[in-house]
Order: sequence, then C-alpha cells, then structure tokens
Amino acid sequence: MQVPLSVGSLLEHAEKFFPKKEIISQTHDILHRLNYKEIGQRTRRLMSAMDELGIRNGDRVGTLAWNHHRHLEIYFAAPGMGSVLHTINIRLSPEDIIYIINHAEDKILFIDEDILPLIEHIHTHLTTVEAFVVMTDKAELPETTIQPLYSYEELLSAGDPAYEFAKDIDENQPAGMCYTSATTGKPKGVVYTHRAIVLHSFALGLADTAAISESDVSMPVVPQFHVNAWGTPFACTWFGSTQVMPGPRFTPKRLAEFIEKFNVTITAGVPTIWLGLLRELDQGNYDTSSLRAVLCGGSAAPLGLIKAFEEKYNIPFYHAYGATETTPLATISRLKSYQQDLSKEERFQERSRQGILVPGLQMKVVGEKGEVEWNGKEMGELLLKGPWIADEYYRDTRSNDAFIDGWFHTGDVVTVDEEGTIKIVDRTKDLIKSGGEWISSVEIENAIMAHDAVFEACVVAIPDDKWQERPIACVVLHEGIDTTITKETILEFLSPQFPKWWLPDDILFFEDIPKSSVGKFLKRELREQVKARYSPQE
Amino acid sequence: MQVPLSVGSLLEHAEKFFPKKEIISQTHDILHRLNYKEIGQRTRRLMSAMDELGIRNGDRVGTLAWNHHRHLEIYFAAPGMGSVLHTINIRLSPEDIIYIINHAEDKILFIDEDILPLIEHIHTHLTTVEAFVVMTDKAELPETTIQPLYSYEELLSAGDPAYEFAKDIDENQPAGMCYTSATTGKPKGVVYTHRAIVLHSFALGLADTAAISESDVSMPVVPQFHVNAWGTPFACTWFGSTQVMPGPRFTPKRLAEFIEKFNVTITAGVPTIWLGLLRELDQGNYDTSSLRAVLCGGSAAPLGLIKAFEEKYNIPFYHAYGATETTPLATISRLKSYQQDLSKEERFQERSRQGILVPGLQMKVVGEKGEVEWNGKEMGELLLKGPWIADEYYRDTRSNDAFIDGWFHTGDVVTVDEEGTIKIVDRTKDLIKSGGEWISSVEIENAIMAHDAVFEACVVAIPDDKWQERPIACVVLHEGIDTTITKETILEFLSPQFPKWWLPDDILFFEDIPKSSVGKFLKRELREQVKARYSPQE
Repeated sequence: MQVPLSVGSLLEHAEKFFPKKEIISQTHDILHRLNYKEIGQRTRRLMSAMDELGIRNGDRVGTLAWNHHRHLEIYFAAPGMGSVLHTINIRLSPEDIIYIINHAEDKILFIDEDILPLIEHIHTHLTTVEAFVVMTDKAELPETTIQPLYSYEELLSAGDPAYEFAKDIDENQPAGMCYTSATTGKPKGVVYTHRAIVLHSFALGLADTAAISESDVSMPVVPQFHVNAWGTPFACTWFGSTQVMPGPRFTPKRLAEFIEKFNVTITAGVPTIWLGLLRELDQGNYDTSSLRAVLCGGSAAPLGLIKAFEEKYNIPFYHAYGATETTPLATISRLKSYQQDLSKEERFQERSRQGILVPGLQMKVVGEKGEVEWNGKEMGELLLKGPWIADEYYRDTRSNDAFIDGWFHTGDVVTVDEEGTIKIVDRTKDLIKSGGEWISSVEIENAIMAHDAVFEACVVAIPDDKWQERPIACVVLHEGIDTTITKETILEFLSPQFPKWWLPDDILFFEDIPKSSVGKFLKRELREQVKARYSPQE
Repeated sequence: MQVPLSVGSLLEHAEKFFPKKEIISQTHDILHRLNYKEIGQRTRRLMSAMDELGIRNGDRVGTLAWNHHRHLEIYFAAPGMGSVLHTINIRLSPEDIIYIINHAEDKILFIDEDILPLIEHIHTHLTTVEAFVVMTDKAELPETTIQPLYSYEELLSAGDPAYEFAKDIDENQPAGMCYTSATTGKPKGVVYTHRAIVLHSFALGLADTAAISESDVSMPVVPQFHVNAWGTPFACTWFGSTQVMPGPRFTPKRLAEFIEKFNVTITAGVPTIWLGLLRELDQGNYDTSSLRAVLCGGSAAPLGLIKAFEEKYNIPFYHAYGATETTPLATISRLKSYQQDLSKEERFQERSRQGILVPGLQMKVVGEKGEVEWNGKEMGELLLKGPWIADEYYRDTRSNDAFIDGWFHTGDVVTVDEEGTIKIVDRTKDLIKSGGEWISSVEIENAIMAHDAVFEACVVAIPDDKWQERPIACVVLHEGIDTTITKETILEFLSPQFPKWWLPDDILFFEDIPKSSVGKFLKRELREQVKARYSPQE
C-alpha cells in the first residue's frame, strides 16, 4: 500500500496504544505529569490554534525552548499539520539567531519564558514572524514590547482537542529543520523529511542500537533544540516510553535526582554532560541502578569516562556517532556476540570506538589514495548515504562542499577496523599535519584524559617552520588535584603510547576550555588563546 | 537523500559488518556451515548466473524449496538484481502449483531435489518457465525429462563473485510474491515491494516486537515458502544473526536437537509445530535454555500451549498475528511494563491474546454497527493499513472483496481490549450465527484445548432449523489417554466458562483433524466429515 511515513502517525500510535503512559516534564515553575492521551489532545488543540493563526502546509514553526512537554507537543503539532518544526539553538549569538529565523522564514515563534528577554532584544530584526507564543505556567503574559504575543496555554484552551492530523502528507516533505554552526560563516540549515524522521525512529528502536522500548523511562539530556534531542522524543513517543524532560537550565544534580526519582532507564547527551554527572555521582549518594543505557555522542568520549560509568557505577555506556546532517544516529558501539570473549581491556578499547553503521545507512571512508583498508590504522574521511542523511544545506551554496556525488562528507576523519567499527580520530580541519604525516589530535586528547589527574584535554595545532604544524596540548586538571602534575608528568604518561613525533611540543594548563553551545571544544578559539600565551601582550 | 529501501542492501550490510557470522543449513545430504561473506559471494555468483540465463528486471523467479541456505541465497539474488522472488507452497495440489506458476509467469524455477518428481509430473503444463535449476549436493544431475535443467552449484561455479546488486531499484517495485490459498477458487497472489520488506524487517528488529539481534541464533521453522518464513531471513541477515535452517522434511526431534546443539535463541512457527515440539520435549531430554523467544502465529495458540512452554520449560512464548497479505507481522503480544503487576493468571490471559499493533501500521475493527468499542467484548472484523500491507491480489478480481477504501479486510474477527490488544475470535466465515447472535468457534476450541486430556479441538457450525447454526466440537485426545473421557466430561469442563447457548450441541472424537499445507484447521473439510457422521453411509 502507498501509505506515507508521517511524524503525526507516531503520536497517533501512542494515543491509541499507550494512552496511560506518562511524560514527566519540569518547566520553570512546575513538575508536570501528563499522559499520551493528554499530550495527544493538547497537540491537537495546538494544531487547531496554529491553523487559526494562519499556519499552513510548509510554513516554518520556530521554537526557542528547553526540554519539556510543550516543546514535545510542538514536535508533533508542526509536522502533524504539514508545517515544519524549526528548533533554534538558544545558545547561539543573537546575530546568528536573527539570521536563522529570517533565513528559515519562520512564521511563528514558540518561546520559553526565560528566553523572552533575548527575543525582546532582537524581535525588530525578524522579518517574517507573524506571531510570538510564550510558553509559561503563569496566568498572565509577561510585560513585553513583543507583538503580537500569545499565551501557549490560552491558545490550547481555545483549541479543538479532536483536530485531525493532516492526512495528505508526502513523506518527502519537510517535517523539521535545525541549523548547525559552521566553522566559517553563518549557521547552515538542515531539513528533516517525514520519511527521515520515521525511518530514524525505527533505527532507534532496534534491539542492537538504542533498543528504545515501552518499558523505558527516557530522559533526553541533549537539548530538544539540537538535532531533535537526537530524535529520541519521536522514537520514545512512538514506542510508548515514559519520558522525563529535565526542563530549563538543569544542573547535574537535577539529572542525578531525576534518574533516581523516576527510575530513568536510558538517557542521552554529550561527554561534557556525563563528566558533570560523574562529578555529581562522586559527591552525592544516588541510586542509579535503573539505568540500562547512557548514550554518548556529539564528540568522542574518553575511555576513562566510559570506564568510570561502567566500573564504578555499573552503568552501561554506549558511544554513538552522528551529526546534524544525519538526523543524527549513524553508528553505535555495541559489542558483537563473539566479542564478548575478548579480555576486559580489549572490550573497553572496542567500546571506546564509535561502533558500526546502523542498519539502513551506507558508508565509505576515503583517504588520500581512495577508500581505506579496514585495518584499524588507515585514516580517511567518513562519507555517509541513506534515507535519513540530508542531501543539502537549506538554500545554501555551501551544500556543494559537503554533499558530493550522493554522499555526505562528514568532515570527520576515522579509522575502520576489521569488524567495521569506526573510530573518530579527528575533524578533517583539526588533523595536525606534521612533516607530511597526519597526527590525530583526538587520540592524544583521549590518551591525556585517561590520566587520573586530568579532567579535560584539548590538542590543537600551531604553525611550525620546520614541520608545518606541531601539536600543543591544553589540559584542565580535576579540582583539588595536587600541583605536582607538570608538563613532564603528562609527557611521560603519553610517551609509551605514541610515536615520538606525535608527542605534543608543549602542555599548557587551563582553568577551562572554551566550548560550543552544544558542549564541543571550540578549537578555533582555543588556538587563539594558545597563540596569545606564546605572544606576550603588548 | 533519496535513497531507495532495497532488499539487496540488507545482505550487503551483513557482508560488510557480519562477514564471520554463520548460516547453518541442513540439506538432504549435508549439514552446511557458511558465513555471510560466503553467502554474499554465492548470491552474487547466482545473480550473474541468472543474468546469463536471461533473467531481467521484473522477471519472476520461482522456488519450490525447503528452508536452507540456497533458498536464502535466492531470497537476496532475485530482488537483488531487480527480479521477483516467488516462493511456491510445495504442499499445494499439483493443479494449484501449475496455476500459480503460470499465473505468476515464472521464468525460472529453483527446485529441491525431492520436489523434482512433482515437477516431472507437471512440467509440460508450465507455459512460461524457460529454465529449471535443481538444488542438490550431488555432483550429477538426477535422471529426468525436465529440460533445460541446470545444477545450482554448477551455475554458481561459473558465476561472478563480484557481481553487483542492482543500484537502480525503485523501492515500490516488486521484490517478492507468495500465493495464499483461498476458501473458494484458485490461490491468490500477494506481491511484496522492496519497501514493504525493508520496513517489515525494521519492525522485526524493534525491542518490543521480535527484537531480532546480532546475538540471536534464529531457526525459522515456518517454511520459507510461506510468507518468506515471516520475513525472518531478511531481518536476521540484515542484523547479522546466526541462522539455523532445518532443511527438508524436518521432524520435531530434529528441531529439538538443533535447538540444543546450536543454542537457538529464537524460532518461529505455527501452533501445530509447537504442539509437536512439546511432545518431543516431554519424551526426550533436551537443553532448551538458550531459547529467549518462540514466536507463534498462523492461527491462535491455545492457552495450554503457552503455559506448557513457559511453566514447564521456561521458554518465553509470544503470540503474533499476521497474514500473507501483511508480510506478515501485524501484532505481537508482549506485556506492557505496568501489566507486569497483574496476577500470573491475568498475565497468561493477556498473553493468550494476539497483542498490540506493530509500530508503522494502522488498524480499525469494524462490527455490524461500525467501529467497535475497545472493551474486550465487542466483535468486529480487523482492517489493516500500512506500508507493508498489500493493496491487491496480483491480477485477480477478488482484490475488490478484500481491499476496500485503502484498508485490507483481514476476514479475521477480533475483540480489542482497553489496552488495544486484539484477540482473534474467529474467521468471518467461521463465526457461528446462532439465534441471531455470534458464537466464536475459536474461543470454544481454545477452552477445550485447555483440558489436560485434549490434544486438539476444532469447532464447526452445522445448519439448524431453529437456531440457523449450532456448534459441534471435534476433539482429538492425547495419545494413551484413558477412555473415560466422554462428551459429558468435555461439556462439564466447558459449562462454567460460557453462556449455555454457546455450548456445543455435540462433542465428536477424531483420530486427527484435517489441516492445510501451513497447519491450519481445514474447517470446510471437517464440516463435511461431521455431516457424514450424522448421515449414515448409504
């Protein structure tokens, strides 16, 4: 049968088969508990309200919001009526946010209460927005010059709880979009079709990937404004999982408390989040025994982090890999059955890789001499193809640099071992070219972070007259660590693990390392700081 | 990206990521062990050989074969080169087989050695077949008048192990087909598109359905000529499971031995198979502890069967439901997390239902007054819609009776409870209409089969002057049961469970009950036997 894959149908399935299952949602003021039947009716009310406000098929619906149930409702209401969910990264600069909203031509904006001041500041620059909706628990709208401003809950009160999901969806039409920061220039927009989101949700439910299930209590820590919280809200809703949404400006403490209180079974986020949670677990006394999986992506997790979760807290920790352009799940690290026979250390080594390709995708790894051998050594750029991989940046000529001959060029440099397991060794742009050979900054970083005294490490290249580039390591020590850790300590620790010419020329100690809005190291900025240390202020 | 879902890509994934994993395959003479790398190369050789023989995009490729690795290779070779895998039910009558092959216009036939005599008998009636291939372990071809006849292994020897899977597949083109017996008239053909098979494979891998995984050792007992062995060979290959194929004319003993010997974790088949296996387990001494799931479908499993597997042998037993027209998985019975709190008996009752709809499909249950309430009582016909539901019978006017307004009318009568769990209560045509009310023959059958002395029971309607129709129960007792079991014993056992007017007017004892080629009760034939008992031979 020609039945389109549609995002609305995922929530419809939950309304019918999991009406009693709950969403536990922390907003600014209240811990809400709603079930899928209620979420379904509220989503239908929201669609009817947006219809009243003039939102039509194909219109972009912007959100500036944290992880909570109202954001989830928009996840289904926008694509459910044929419009496009456009989640906006609230941590970007005001300039970037103006650019993104105007470039996407958002027609309506849904805004969390605490983000309203930002919009107050920029709203006169927004050229396409016709309505602003504030998501607040309060009865009155806040004082503001933003016009026209609506209250989310008031819109819902007036809406129709029996409004129908659009039946004429083309599965290849846009359901969502998300802008990703670029190394140079403005953020680039990625469009997700209905087909991409539904197939990606299937992929998240597979026993060998995230195995998302009705029996799960899922707490996405990755923001809903970042690649749809890795697509977990779509999959969890479809499969009837309980969802716990930690809300605005959560702390590691709140995460730990929620895990214990709500028996969270699966959670997902970037390494920085897990480093923070680990500190909290070390300090507090939490029962985390309900957790069956911590999914970690966004950037490579150091082996030490994986070990700490698994050995100290008995929490299974899974490395995954993806990008904004890949919806995002592309690979996940799970041992194959026969790899269970490896030694513990070998298992950890394998688990520190990013895993094998998720069923449904195709990959190629291309080095300077064509496709690399799968020997765990040869480095090449990872290329991806598949029904949930984007095929362009939205109205952006930079598409031509990344989407070539039907393949998405990830910009990530990897090795592939005999098992087909990839390991991210660097970004193409962060590889260090020393004496005509490549040095992986990430591998050195991970090795340094395996040192007990080290909290974080980041390796960048500095120009070198003789070798072209040389690595410098920037290190943050754990709080309260004794001060006998020196450059030499680190270099001695590294030297048995690498060829001599890989060893950093210097080890610099930092209070912290600059990070992007999604917790990734900002190497460009760090490189400037390193340069500044070497060139005394005038 | 516009990347089509294609069957060939499933095996390509296994070749790359699971090359070492094995297929263990019993043929007539040999127990073969091949890995996915070898299966991949053999499949490529087969595609090149079929190409040489003139098989082109869209051509139908017929198979008359048991469950083994060569059959698996054709599963991927035929759709992999754009032609159509047409599995033929070898248990049908010669007349039906002639009809099916001619109606599908098979261009080539792959035949197991022991089925060759059948083809010898009918081959002059086949109007479209241009080549016959015999699948044998022997070096020489058997003596036969069939022409032209090829040896499978010889074709492979001459084939190209690097032949490429077709890259220009349209996901909506046919990948497979299977004919299903009709109550009246010739068998009806169902076509499976690439899209249907791939999406169905995703569904089989979901944590909450069959959860097929790399770590599984899967032994499909349901024949590969019956709805693609429920699609398990496609999913298991994609996800890298070990597969155990029990080969021609297997016995319950071989199944039990294979489970123990190869540590089978998941198997699938009809209730008759499991009744047979249960007898074997009762008689023998087998280690079945590796089994994590027995999937049971095709017809409703009696509660006693489920209990015997779970309580006596600690083998999780999952009811599933589907049809040839549904690829087939449509529902599967797994308890929701909060249903774990039910009493043991309530859990078994719930588990004896056919479960909730698999994600990706839509259902409606329509009774005489429109859609029924989900109260576990109201009966109606189950209607299904979705991307792996067929939309017609192949070139057959009977399509109009079953595919109406975009819904497949299953012909199965069900109730739905508050949880959305369906229970098959009958076939529309087998419902007994007594005094203007419906009686479910299946519910009475299951109740009778819960009696310790009963092996099988089948309830049919006989015409009645006063009530229109009345139920008669036909019962097969376990072997060696004492002969004090009478009509009254059974009626006394039933009477507390049903309204008085549901109780059968008579209980007849049989040596066995006629069954179809796929193990379902042949009620039409049984009805004739019952009538014969009441009308003494002249």
